[in-house]
Amino acid sequence: MDRSTEEAQTKEMDIRSLSSSHHHSQSERYIHKVGVPPKQNLFKEFRETLKETFFADDPLRPFKDRSRSQKFILGIQTIFPIFEWGRKYNLKKLRGDLIAGLTIASLCIPQDIGYAKLANLDPQYGLYSSFVPPLIYAFMGSSRDIAIGPVAVVSLLLGTMLQNELDPINEKAQYQRLAFTATFFAGITQVTLGFFRLGFLIDFLSHAAIVGFMGGAAVTIALQQLKGFLGIKKFTKKSDIISVMHSVVASWNWQTIAIGASFLSFLLFAKFIGKKNKKFFWVPAIAPLISVILSTFFVYITRADKQGVQIVKNIKKGINPSSVNEIYFSGDYLLKGFRIGVVAGMIGLTEAIAIGRTFAAMKDYQLDGNKEMVALGAMNVVGSMTSCYVATGSFSRSAVNFMAGCETAVSNIIMSCVVFLTLEFITPLFKYTPNAILASIIINAVIGLIDIGAATLLWKIDKFDFVACMGAFFGVVFSSVEIGLLIAVSISFAKILLQVTRPRTAILGKVPRTTVYRNIQQYPEATKVPGVLIVRVDSAIYFSNSNYVKERILRWLEDEEEEVKAATYQPRIQFLIVEMSPVTDIDTSGIHALEGLHRSLEKREVQLILANPGPVVMDKLHASSFTSLIGEDNIFLTVADAVSSCAPKLVEEQP
Amino acid sequence: MDRSTEEAQTKEMDIRSLSSSHHHSQSERYIHKVGVPPKQNLFKEFRETLKETFFADDPLRPFKDRSRSQKFILGIQTIFPIFEWGRKYNLKKLRGDLIAGLTIASLCIPQDIGYAKLANLDPQYGLYSSFVPPLIYAFMGSSRDIAIGPVAVVSLLLGTMLQNELDPINEKAQYQRLAFTATFFAGITQVTLGFFRLGFLIDFLSHAAIVGFMGGAAVTIALQQLKGFLGIKKFTKKSDIISVMHSVVASWNWQTIAIGASFLSFLLFAKFIGKKNKKFFWVPAIAPLISVILSTFFVYITRADKQGVQIVKNIKKGINPSSVNEIYFSGDYLLKGFRIGVVAGMIGLTEAIAIGRTFAAMKDYQLDGNKEMVALGAMNVVGSMTSCYVATGSFSRSAVNFMAGCETAVSNIIMSCVVFLTLEFITPLFKYTPNAILASIIINAVIGLIDIGAATLLWKIDKFDFVACMGAFFGVVFSSVEIGLLIAVSISFAKILLQVTRPRTAILGKVPRTTVYRNIQQYPEATKVPGVLIVRVDSAIYFSNSNYVKERILRWLEDEEEEVKAATYQPRIQFLIVEMSPVTDIDTSGIHALEGLHRSLEKREVQLILANPGPVVMDKLHASSFTSLIGEDNIFLTVADAVSSCAPKLVEEQP
Repeated sequence: MDRSTEEAQTKEMDIRSLSSSHHHSQSERYIHKVGVPPKQNLFKEFRETLKETFFADDPLRPFKDRSRSQKFILGIQTIFPIFEWGRKYNLKKLRGDLIAGLTIASLCIPQDIGYAKLANLDPQYGLYSSFVPPLIYAFMGSSRDIAIGPVAVVSLLLGTMLQNELDPINEKAQYQRLAFTATFFAGITQVTLGFFRLGFLIDFLSHAAIVGFMGGAAVTIALQQLKGFLGIKKFTKKSDIISVMHSVVASWNWQTIAIGASFLSFLLFAKFIGKKNKKFFWVPAIAPLISVILSTFFVYITRADKQGVQIVKNIKKGINPSSVNEIYFSGDYLLKGFRIGVVAGMIGLTEAIAIGRTFAAMKDYQLDGNKEMVALGAMNVVGSMTSCYVATGSFSRSAVNFMAGCETAVSNIIMSCVVFLTLEFITPLFKYTPNAILASIIINAVIGLIDIGAATLLWKIDKFDFVACMGAFFGVVFSSVEIGLLIAVSISFAKILLQVTRPRTAILGKVPRTTVYRNIQQYPEATKVPGVLIVRVDSAIYFSNSNYVKERILRWLEDEEEEVKAATYQPRIQFLIVEMSPVTDIDTSGIHALEGLHRSLEKREVQLILANPGPVVMDKLHASSFTSLIGEDNIFLTVADAVSSCAPKLVEEQP
Repeated sequence: MDRSTEEAQTKEMDIRSLSSSHHHSQSERYIHKVGVPPKQNLFKEFRETLKETFFADDPLRPFKDRSRSQKFILGIQTIFPIFEWGRKYNLKKLRGDLIAGLTIASLCIPQDIGYAKLANLDPQYGLYSSFVPPLIYAFMGSSRDIAIGPVAVVSLLLGTMLQNELDPINEKAQYQRLAFTATFFAGITQVTLGFFRLGFLIDFLSHAAIVGFMGGAAVTIALQQLKGFLGIKKFTKKSDIISVMHSVVASWNWQTIAIGASFLSFLLFAKFIGKKNKKFFWVPAIAPLISVILSTFFVYITRADKQGVQIVKNIKKGINPSSVNEIYFSGDYLLKGFRIGVVAGMIGLTEAIAIGRTFAAMKDYQLDGNKEMVALGAMNVVGSMTSCYVATGSFSRSAVNFMAGCETAVSNIIMSCVVFLTLEFITPLFKYTPNAILASIIINAVIGLIDIGAATLLWKIDKFDFVACMGAFFGVVFSSVEIGLLIAVSISFAKILLQVTRPRTAILGKVPRTTVYRNIQQYPEATKVPGVLIVRVDSAIYFSNSNYVKERILRWLEDEEEEVKAATYQPRIQFLIVEMSPVTDIDTSGIHALEGLHRSLEKREVQLILANPGPVVMDKLHASSFTSLIGEDNIFLTVADAVSSCAPKLVEEQP
């Protein structure tokens, strides 16, 4: 259809509607009937709902109309996307990936060692978790920008939850075994959610909740690190008097503070440079490694460890040993590991999917959330059997990866290779790395998670979201990570329920020089139609709000009637038009409420008229024969149609 | 505004829109700006939300602009509506109330004795509960038609829950004390909900859930009564071997079965007559009392109780003794009583409010749900101190009350007086009443609660509601009353969440000869606009659905682009119009999703356009400066405006 026919049609319509306002006998011709959708087969309807809920993205679409062998290849490519993009891989892409991979490797090595300590594990476990999982992910994942490995928040979460069950120092062996068990079940949780297409569950953790949760976790981690930063020896809640005394005696080591403070300043300065000029993104990326090298060298030369500066001391050489036999597949710890794993797995997923989506949107490619979950889960299951703890996408490293110009998941493979070389050859050199440096690196990393700007924006846009955010923040800071999560999720749910329980309603008026009826609060210039009250209901009408909606509409009517009585020369309200456009669904309670409304209006000699009910609503109104109760001809396509049909009747009733 | 000006204005608009399609330079004049609501003060906004949530019915409105003494009188009248309607009371009304009161009294006396047995209490407690609570209610309640007293479902619920804690036979004294404690807390719960305006909480029990719940309870009660009906002595789960043996021996008493069966037939026949002809509503109303009198007389004459026909035996004479000192105000049973009371109180409320609303709608008067709750609660609190158990509105008796022509709550006072006389003078006569008659009366009463018609309608209208209904039904029948409730509420909530997680989206087309754009599935005659994709989102955009909405819109776009590619002479999609009318709210996650959508569309050179965002959405789009991101002039009042602004740009891009 080209422009002129379009125009001609518009003209035709306008002339018709013009003529119809002259000749009301012809009104049938231009008042369009409200469509009733064709009755659907019950099974088909059920299948449609199921599909839209679980297979909204139609994952099997490419498999349609393919031969068997093609289906097999497609299946392999679906599970291992590397076989799809790998075929188009070239040297130019490798160059980008190589630079990005080396950059994130230099960033991840010091972070890994620090994060392992957050999880109360030996430093090598952090490095292990940056070796195997990224490799698995590179084969199975579909994000091109995510950088896989241990992250601060999940490490902290895992550490605190495991600590509640076992003492990481005195029961070290069991503690490690429980960590692998939790990792295993985190992976299983992720695979299950992805496989059964339940990925939408992680959407229930709202953006606001995540901002608060991350901020709270960052503050908790930073405070915890201050101990290491100030040179106070680490002591757990359960530790005995002797070690507590020891740590107090050893506290306030000035050399440690000097090292920590100077390198933290260095890291923050590097971050500042990186922020100032995007070109220098690599400055904050390699600053941690430089700090580690410098400080380790310094401690080795001065033997500052003899003056009380704590060092990493022993870090095992060699790549990941197998941990298949260490996972608890029976006994008491099976359940505990499962519980911890589910929570850690969900949080890990939330973080990874959020990162994946962010960067996918930036480069405009689609990310299948459920497939991504299967990849992340598989990587953690394999990880749990190769001495890794829960790995996921790291926000800071992914951002560096992106800015360094990564092209595909090959950058993760590069990083993994560097970590491999580190484990095989360089780990002994980390012996003299001061703990204070690791603390500085962690503090520097988690500071980025405190997003005051986002919180301010939440306050500006949506107060309820802000409350959820603050609930999560204070919950994490003052109670625990789990409580913080629970608070945030509860507040978010309460918001949805409130909206469904107390939907907005509005009085509509005619916007001047149009046939459009809009909320008179939003459009103060809109005028009410005399003798007609037009109400819009802004929600599906369900059991939770049906009574409220009915009573609210009656209250609008009463208010209006009072107003009319006060004014002179105003006809009494004879028609109540309910604009149903936003009413996307109705249930039996809702229909009962409409029936009640109709009955009340009949008593007052007011005619109920519906405008623009949607397909689902229309279907149900028909099924319950509500349409015949109020009369088919009292249901209109638009408010304007409804008003123009009321107008003549209204005039006739006037004396 | 009279008809002619209305018409003139319509004409003017039509001419303008006609001319505008010729002269696009003038289009600014007729394209109306989307209104941004005036920025509200945060405190005011908060107060408004609070008011609409808790004080939606504006209960303090009549108190405005009154003197102090007037306020005092109004306050008294608000708490005790009898002082309001009592002043207009007259002899004509008394006549109606007298007849109705006597009718419901004749119905309630036999029912009360039976229901007390459902609650495992002595028969007189049923009568007590029909004496004090109706009196209190008559002073405080605002329904004119409700009949107050013990009801089958609440009696059963109370009986089973109390039985789980204490044995009603061997621990009779404690059992009774716990029953009063539960009643006390049921009343407190009701007063609290009403006073804190939390009445909307009972709306969460959907109509569908209630239908299933009532049906399940009715089946359970009827099956339980079969024992009494067949002459098997009642035995509890906890009863010992001896009494079990005893009851088996005493079972299958043919005299009992004969009495029960004949009177049940009589009652069902009476019910049939009452249904056939509304004039004979009093036949089923007095049938139970006649059955009791006849059967009692028959047993007394034949001394059938000596042949194993079980009789009521002892029923205490005299009115309610005080039970203030029997309520557990401390100790273990305090908490148990509280828990049971909360559940029983909620169920009682649900039933009473549903009844009150039904009859209020029939006679078209308003019922303040929260005030009603305070009245019901106060009556139960007083009841718990005067040996009553939980009373509420009875559906069957209220219907009889209504049909007998009650005018005010005075019919409850009349009934109460009759019960008083019964307690004082007639109770000894009930000694020889056979239990089988009471069982017949209960079965006859609860059969009415099984509403197969309503369940069929649920199936027809809303499959999800039907599932909730069946969940409640089977939960009650096969597990317990509480489990049934839990199932029903969970399913109802799941439905709301599903709707919020997977909202419907639709492609809109132009309905021929109008400027109206509607769902092309509902209106197959509607035509798409070439080069423009119009999508409507049918829900508020929240964290729970923001990703889905974004991805679903992009999928619509892809589908459309494929279609366009397949067709010839079709311009590529250059504009995506999102119709926002049903989007009643948006949160920060939703705005992020819109930003993501905008970014993805930019990559594909498709312009995002919004049509008719509501006041709340517009406010938040402004606050987040999303409006300036997509450009203020890409937000239109209607889809038609948006399309007409796209059309010229589209043509220019064509080669």
